[in-house]
Amino acid sequence: MTGRLIGVGVGPGDPELMTLKAVRALGSANVVAHFAKAGQAGNGRSIAQDHFPADAEELPLHYPVTTEIPKDAEAYRDSIRTFYDAAAASIATRLEAGRVVAVICEGDPLFYGSYMHLHTRLAPLYPTEVVAGVSGMSGCWSAAGVPIAQGDDVLTVLPATLPLAELERRLAETDAAVIMKVGRHLPKVRRALAQARRLSRAVYVERGTMAGAQIVPLADKTDDRAPYFAVVLVPGWASRP
Amino acid sequence: MTGRLIGVGVGPGDPELMTLKAVRALGSANVVAHFAKAGQAGNGRSIAQDHFPADAEELPLHYPVTTEIPKDAEAYRDSIRTFYDAAAASIATRLEAGRVVAVICEGDPLFYGSYMHLHTRLAPLYPTEVVAGVSGMSGCWSAAGVPIAQGDDVLTVLPATLPLAELERRLAETDAAVIMKVGRHLPKVRRALAQARRLSRAVYVERGTMAGAQIVPLADKTDDRAPYFAVVLVPGWASRP
Repeated sequence: MTGRLIGVGVGPGDPELMTLKAVRALGSANVVAHFAKAGQAGNGRSIAQDHFPADAEELPLHYPVTTEIPKDAEAYRDSIRTFYDAAAASIATRLEAGRVVAVICEGDPLFYGSYMHLHTRLAPLYPTEVVAGVSGMSGCWSAAGVPIAQGDDVLTVLPATLPLAELERRLAETDAAVIMKVGRHLPKVRRALAQARRLSRAVYVERGTMAGAQIVPLADKTDDRAPYFAVVLVPGWASRP
Repeated sequence: MTGRLIGVGVGPGDPELMTLKAVRALGSANVVAHFAKAGQAGNGRSIAQDHFPADAEELPLHYPVTTEIPKDAEAYRDSIRTFYDAAAASIATRLEAGRVVAVICEGDPLFYGSYMHLHTRLAPLYPTEVVAGVSGMSGCWSAAGVPIAQGDDVLTVLPATLPLAELERRLAETDAAVIMKVGRHLPKVRRALAQARRLSRAVYVERGTMAGAQIVPLADKTDDRAPYFAVVLVPGWASRP
């Protein structure tokens, strides 16, 4: 008799933004797996650790060190693929032994998360459940108090990694936008917003629901420093009754 | 001394998808307000009612009956505007009296929700907090086990009310999509997906995280019946390691 895989969304950072279901799922786990960079604890673990059962096995999944390899290189893809294959195999061993394995997912498990790579490998083979979580972007616009989209608005979620011209074109064509993974792309994001005539509406959010959150109109941010997980919000809602 | 307004996201339907923070916010409320159609209980209330304090005042906010009025008519807008003005005034009276007023919001408060109309009216005047919630779309793709977007994917949230040509164009240009408020627009949505060559990837989800959920590949759904809150998911994730 095999065990069960649970992808557990633990929300955007504030431990209180975990759901009742996530807390219960963690409580039922024999094994709690979490992603982290080597030598670091991982945000997901910090958010959820108070709910790990005392007798559960912790299974850290350490990303390979790839800083020396260009992201579009075959070597990078190979390294990442090998990592996810090994992580899935490690979890599969425990599922075969009848264990309940909870995988901690920051935000929502199936929305731009590492868990998805385990899900596609394991869900076809083992009983699997996904516990939806509050996404990072929801945490950000709630902390900022920014109504993001309403009525017939089109909302576009854009990675800041896109080329300038594509960012500009997509920003000009949407009612509302969330730009994710801002980091070193901030100057490009600012330029795309200006060219799409959306800069005056844009709000910069850093560490959304965590201590030390920074929330400012992007037009008022004078430096180009931004962490990887910073987001820029462009609220829609042109016509409100 | 004035009270405090809290927009409380209660998630997509499963009461266990409420956050710990939402439960605590409701527990702190003197007044619990919730939107509903006249004569109906409202989904939000059903989700959250077990957490209402016994001595809290319930303040139902009944949408005006507008079924006889075309949505683009000035009379419709007037009716809705008057309703939100009155609802905000009713809450303001309680805030002025020093009460903590929690407004129940299905899904996430600032993502396509009625609460936003109260927020814009009241947040500039009173201490206000927004408790992020699991969105309806997160609940749907989690129930379906569909990884929606990854890496550099662009995700577009589209109301099914858009014209056919616009739906088709936007679907053809995005990596991943969520089509909301499907209802009577299902035949148009199906046609737009077919023309954008995305029909074979599309998943139809009805009553996502509730009893009687229906989750099928859209291509396998032979009838044109869909409730207003049904969604269609188009997963992205073209290149996975």
